[in-house]
Amino acid sequence: MRYELYYWPTIQGRGEFVRLALEAAGADYVDVARLPKSKGGGTSALMTSIDDPDTKRPPFAPPYLKAGKLIISHTANILQFLGPRLGLIPADVTSREWAHQLQLTITDLLVEVHDTHHPIASSLYYQQQKREARRRTLHFIGERVPKYLDYFERVLRANTKGKGKPHAIGRTLSYVDLSVFQVIAGLRYAFPRTLRRLEPDYPGLVALHEHVVTYPNVSAYLSSKRRIPFNEYGIFRHYPELDRP
Amino acid sequence: MRYELYYWPTIQGRGEFVRLALEAAGADYVDVARLPKSKGGGTSALMTSIDDPDTKRPPFAPPYLKAGKLIISHTANILQFLGPRLGLIPADVTSREWAHQLQLTITDLLVEVHDTHHPIASSLYYQQQKREARRRTLHFIGERVPKYLDYFERVLRANTKGKGKPHAIGRTLSYVDLSVFQVIAGLRYAFPRTLRRLEPDYPGLVALHEHVVTYPNVSAYLSSKRRIPFNEYGIFRHYPELDRP
Repeated sequence: MRYELYYWPTIQGRGEFVRLALEAAGADYVDVARLPKSKGGGTSALMTSIDDPDTKRPPFAPPYLKAGKLIISHTANILQFLGPRLGLIPADVTSREWAHQLQLTITDLLVEVHDTHHPIASSLYYQQQKREARRRTLHFIGERVPKYLDYFERVLRANTKGKGKPHAIGRTLSYVDLSVFQVIAGLRYAFPRTLRRLEPDYPGLVALHEHVVTYPNVSAYLSSKRRIPFNEYGIFRHYPELDRP
Repeated sequence: MRYELYYWPTIQGRGEFVRLALEAAGADYVDVARLPKSKGGGTSALMTSIDDPDTKRPPFAPPYLKAGKLIISHTANILQFLGPRLGLIPADVTSREWAHQLQLTITDLLVEVHDTHHPIASSLYYQQQKREARRRTLHFIGERVPKYLDYFERVLRANTKGKGKPHAIGRTLSYVDLSVFQVIAGLRYAFPRTLRRLEPDYPGLVALHEHVVTYPNVSAYLSSKRRIPFNEYGIFRHYPELDRP
């Protein structure tokens, strides 16, 4: 099956968690809005799709995935759907259930990352809410980042018990591993000072990040033009003035 | 099966979406932290449970549900699990998939509601972030509430097509109906002026709210002591100074 991903074409954002899964599995997919306009792509294709009054079960927001007649929205839900189909989650129900919980925790973290630079409104520019962003980010890097990293380090240790390759679930690469990789990469980009200070406490997460890159499909993707660089339009943004304890 | 719900004992919060489903279905459940301490309840029971180092797959935060040996966390995920077991979702896979998407959209809305009074940090009191709360709420009630209500009104109309009882999915009561009910109830409590102004545009949602209350199990629950009143510790809080366009 050829999957169609609908997401903003100029940022990693939430769509990147889906892109990473599709790429790691070597899936057949189209990143619709990244196609040229002449081939039915561009942001306008995305907007036309999301506003289509004929859609019976409309998504609230990107990212969403079209898989045949099905439309699946919400990042964690898309990954719950794709995981077994792409071989990115162990086959048993308990692992799948657990993976979804972990992914939903990442969803929560992403909202908090976004709101470091947009604590007042998504409809305003960062520059219009810098004061509040500074205040919110102080709490985020002081309290929330350690809380989330503690949690995922604990999950990783409970799974690996100090032996074998670092995986969040089971003994093989899962979409949760890919998402944790992306979280670490994003936090390093957005808050490099903070991460340099914190990383010694999270050897498992650092090892997982390193291990994920060794998968040939992943490394090929990361060095391709398909991987949009981090920038100041996405969720993880580097504003040096925010990255200070 | 007797379900065990773990959630804060003094607020509706996210746990209320699970309580409503359990109550509407007449399920056998224990609201663990609301039991007296002498019977293993109280906030301390919740904290002991969540910090238990022996838990193999620990939840990140309440609410979570114990169902036999399974621990299921995240409100939308708990409802995805309970829906078919409690008869609160049509049997087909498409309906279940769609219900989860709608519930995840409600999850996103709830974060935004919470952040109207806590735009800077959950670890601070509202009084310590009132200025930012006022600014954030202006955007929330001006832009975000209409966006979410537009969406759910559209979903409702597409499902009912102007005929029959108001349901978000199918022809029977689902956990999504119960959650939409709770959202309307919460928004009315927190932002009564705003809702009075907006409600004429959302006849479907108003009808759904009215219809949900006609289910005997729901109305019995709402008038029981098990229904914790809205208060200024939960997600939906009424601060009159915020409810002004």
